[in-house]
Amino acid sequence: MTVGTSRKILLANRPKGMPNESNFKIIEERIPEIKSGEVLIKSLYISVDPYMRGRMSDAKSYAQPYKVGEPFVGGIVGKIVESKNDKYQEGGYIEGRLDWAEFNVSDGSNIRRLDPELAPISTSLHVLGMPGLTAYFGLLHIGQPKEGETVVVSGASGAVGTIVGQIAKLKGCRVVGIAGGEEKCAFLTDELGFDAAINYKSTSNLREALKEACPNGVDVYFDNVGGDVSDAVLTLINFQARIVICGQISQYNLEKPELGPRVAGQLLTKSALMKGFIVSDYAPHNKEGLTQLTKWIKDGHIQYRENMVEGFENAVDAFLGLFRGDNIGKQLVKIADE
Amino acid sequence: MTVGTSRKILLANRPKGMPNESNFKIIEERIPEIKSGEVLIKSLYISVDPYMRGRMSDAKSYAQPYKVGEPFVGGIVGKIVESKNDKYQEGGYIEGRLDWAEFNVSDGSNIRRLDPELAPISTSLHVLGMPGLTAYFGLLHIGQPKEGETVVVSGASGAVGTIVGQIAKLKGCRVVGIAGGEEKCAFLTDELGFDAAINYKSTSNLREALKEACPNGVDVYFDNVGGDVSDAVLTLINFQARIVICGQISQYNLEKPELGPRVAGQLLTKSALMKGFIVSDYAPHNKEGLTQLTKWIKDGHIQYRENMVEGFENAVDAFLGLFRGDNIGKQLVKIADE
Repeated sequence: MTVGTSRKILLANRPKGMPNESNFKIIEERIPEIKSGEVLIKSLYISVDPYMRGRMSDAKSYAQPYKVGEPFVGGIVGKIVESKNDKYQEGGYIEGRLDWAEFNVSDGSNIRRLDPELAPISTSLHVLGMPGLTAYFGLLHIGQPKEGETVVVSGASGAVGTIVGQIAKLKGCRVVGIAGGEEKCAFLTDELGFDAAINYKSTSNLREALKEACPNGVDVYFDNVGGDVSDAVLTLINFQARIVICGQISQYNLEKPELGPRVAGQLLTKSALMKGFIVSDYAPHNKEGLTQLTKWIKDGHIQYRENMVEGFENAVDAFLGLFRGDNIGKQLVKIADE
Repeated sequence: MTVGTSRKILLANRPKGMPNESNFKIIEERIPEIKSGEVLIKSLYISVDPYMRGRMSDAKSYAQPYKVGEPFVGGIVGKIVESKNDKYQEGGYIEGRLDWAEFNVSDGSNIRRLDPELAPISTSLHVLGMPGLTAYFGLLHIGQPKEGETVVVSGASGAVGTIVGQIAKLKGCRVVGIAGGEEKCAFLTDELGFDAAINYKSTSNLREALKEACPNGVDVYFDNVGGDVSDAVLTLINFQARIVICGQISQYNLEKPELGPRVAGQLLTKSALMKGFIVSDYAPHNKEGLTQLTKWIKDGHIQYRENMVEGFENAVDAFLGLFRGDNIGKQLVKIADE
């Protein structure tokens, strides 16, 4: 039996606009004893993801809002340190949606076993997990890129965008990334093989820069960002373009929704499709997606980068960093050694 | 050989904002002699359609803009009055995209034969023609309504909207129409069997009225209108809703594009689809569509109404009337007796 205490991060109150440290609270609890059928999990890596911002608000959405005074919940990789469940052995690694805590108790229904031989276990929080599947399903099922087409990705240097661009390259497309910063753009073109990358922060005319980078127009737009960036891309879409709405990070922290150019007219004259989605829409295909992504990783066709912050007490700041644009690749928080 | 003159309507200049009579010019020409392979067609009915407003502008779109000084072109039903083409007999009826003129010459490539036994020949300009197929493909291929779902149609009393609503009823849906005027709304509910109709012109809070008419939310929105009306509908869409962008008549005559609420966030949280289209996207399915629509008409499952204006000289005003909301059902101009 593990004895000791576990820190846990709660939602203290709902943010107005940009979240900050005061919206969170760290408490310390006694590690509970597990019952028959349960396991005790020690957190190793915490995933911070933009969608969690949505759950901090109480607006209706696909994800239930976090409750004030209750734990933050998100993707965590951990190690089983005690088991009263036949399906999980002590010492095994798992991934699941768990409380942001140093230790979690689970009955096994919200976790999956990881094979550390297959790939580093932390990848189950990105390329071989939710963000990887998000990229895979969004691009292939909605975007349906065809060889020779042009695919534009916004938020291109993040956990999802990096995978989207690389899959699009594997499909024979011209791939143009939009990201905020020279280092991010260099990473996309020099390390991930994007055909072009545009630093929207230093570009005075994004539309002109995009036009130059997309001489044949835009067939697929994979949007993680929304706002002005998307306004510019949408002016350049081709007939029967597909616009994949994966995230709208530019809008999450606005105190009031902003107005923008109406898009329906452009969709109409271009016979274009715009579709929002959440990765769970494609849950029946998860196995296919993970198998393919694993193969691409093993074959060296997909690269990834982890941006690792250390220490449980830094998880909140790592999350806030997503909205500052701190991360290149997947932002993770390391809680303990494997 | 037919001798005489034929009046023809030209685009005199491009409208800024709402078009008016001064954008058009009527000329009179000698009826040309036809050559081998050609037919001479006497116009009987002219179709006026909202999409033609788009062609009056020179903005890039799916349809080529009309050229200034050249004829208006649109759907016309006519009679072959002279034929030097084996496929078309004198006295036969045809439909095609032809000049807005009392007489047209065709080589047969831009017309189709009509069977007056099948249905009144004027229906080839609406329920058994472009607007009917537009309704059919847009609703069934994009909207994909399922039994028990709620379908909302804007511009519901027009040539496309009336068919959309009736097909949705045949598919077992709750159907709510949005139209401008009490008479139009009464027509929808009393004659076409819509479950509810909302007069957006007299409704102080469209969103509340829609909420009441759609107690289970909106699964399919077939949009002919755009603007504020669509803003209200979009707030009520359900998870995995389908939004069919067929027309945006509220926007066609704006001198400057207007801003509106951004829709991507709503599509994202609802995993919803928004798709623009033009009827020709589904051209390979035209036969299937026409066969089904003809059957529904013959079986009395689909009703239609024609709003008939008489006289070639009134064609322009009938077209302008589309933007005043004059018509209930299909707006036609009768040029000559059958």
